[in-house]
Amino acid sequence: MTLAYSIRIEGGSAFLDADESGHLLQVLRKRKGDQVLVTDGSGRGWTAEITLADRKAAMLTLLDPVPGPSPWGVDIHLALAPPKQAARLEWFLEKVTEIGVNRISMLATQRTERTRWRFDRLQRILVAAMKQSGQFRLPLLDSEDLTVDQLVDLYPGEDRIKVIPTCDWSNLPRLSSVYKPGHPIVVAIGPEGDFTPEEVKTAIQGGFQAVLLGDNRLRTETAGVIACAQIHTIHGL
Amino acid sequence: MTLAYSIRIEGGSAFLDADESGHLLQVLRKRKGDQVLVTDGSGRGWTAEITLADRKAAMLTLLDPVPGPSPWGVDIHLALAPPKQAARLEWFLEKVTEIGVNRISMLATQRTERTRWRFDRLQRILVAAMKQSGQFRLPLLDSEDLTVDQLVDLYPGEDRIKVIPTCDWSNLPRLSSVYKPGHPIVVAIGPEGDFTPEEVKTAIQGGFQAVLLGDNRLRTETAGVIACAQIHTIHGL
Repeated sequence: MTLAYSIRIEGGSAFLDADESGHLLQVLRKRKGDQVLVTDGSGRGWTAEITLADRKAAMLTLLDPVPGPSPWGVDIHLALAPPKQAARLEWFLEKVTEIGVNRISMLATQRTERTRWRFDRLQRILVAAMKQSGQFRLPLLDSEDLTVDQLVDLYPGEDRIKVIPTCDWSNLPRLSSVYKPGHPIVVAIGPEGDFTPEEVKTAIQGGFQAVLLGDNRLRTETAGVIACAQIHTIHGL
Repeated sequence: MTLAYSIRIEGGSAFLDADESGHLLQVLRKRKGDQVLVTDGSGRGWTAEITLADRKAAMLTLLDPVPGPSPWGVDIHLALAPPKQAARLEWFLEKVTEIGVNRISMLATQRTERTRWRFDRLQRILVAAMKQSGQFRLPLLDSEDLTVDQLVDLYPGEDRIKVIPTCDWSNLPRLSSVYKPGHPIVVAIGPEGDFTPEEVKTAIQGGFQAVLLGDNRLRTETAGVIACAQIHTIHGL
């Protein structure tokens, strides 16, 4: 059944924004009275009936709650220095949403090549990937860049595993041996030219641990996807 | 140092095809006498000097062997029903090459949407990804499609783990619990509309085991990348 994304679910009704209303009514040709699935990205989903077929602001009436795919049970925050090519950034967002991620931040590092990005465009990619993979959980995308300092300040304590993958040092532990199933984790992925030594120092002083993702040199966006996949793999063992 | 791909290494010389010669001499502006790294994709690499700066057919003289990244020590064959969008197929090829894969086949299934693809174009993507990730090992890409029957016939024995990921059945084991580190493995990834029941039956009768990659529904090309990442993760534990 078609899955629609609602920006607000309240009092038994689900409200769709203009994008989603147009997609549902014009592209998918749904009409008043048709039933679809709807979620607000919070993890909850319902069957619902289209009660207001407005192409700019459709409204659905909730019918029955529907169980979604089981939550992945681990809190993953990926902070990534966005690659220069927009397509690579968008691929990253699509793939980690499919795999399962809780929060995504764009890292403003000294060597980040892309410093401007459109929040609404990236958000639409997340929504499309969530719907396509049949999930009811939308990753939280920070609307503002984070610097390494800000990322470090976000998690001052010890309760979250904090890692910074690199391929420059040998003899580092692998992410898969550092990650403990069930623990929340934050992964800081550097730009193509890597973090500066000062940024690495800041992260490590802030409790981040340098790790390897494997033997090969990975592109930024590949590293983000592989880190996410490794955490899920270890968690699911 | 720049890494060049040679189609033939023989008698201390490395020969480049027209694509690679043009890239090295025109795009990267290398000249006669310059030193680069060269590999033939077999796992071996050398420093080499450009001795014939022909833009259509350059030649290098090998100097010293260079150790590449350690081989990943597991033989992975991915057979994937190519997705309709060329970009998605190309992403798949780039990413699994970065992660590490030995052989790639295009699966001709009953529901495969893309039945024509250009071998030379896909091969160029593999070469570019190998070079970008600093590897000396080029995945073998089959020049012809395989059907499920042909894939089954390829591995009649018990010495290779054979899996067919699906998201349609619950209570299946996960790939990560079926995979035994170090064992060669073949993974058959179906098209967007999944394998037909007959194809699944053929595979299972041929010793393939149905597995899950996780809880979420994944696109074809994502499933291929995630399967590859999971095998590497388990193997590296």
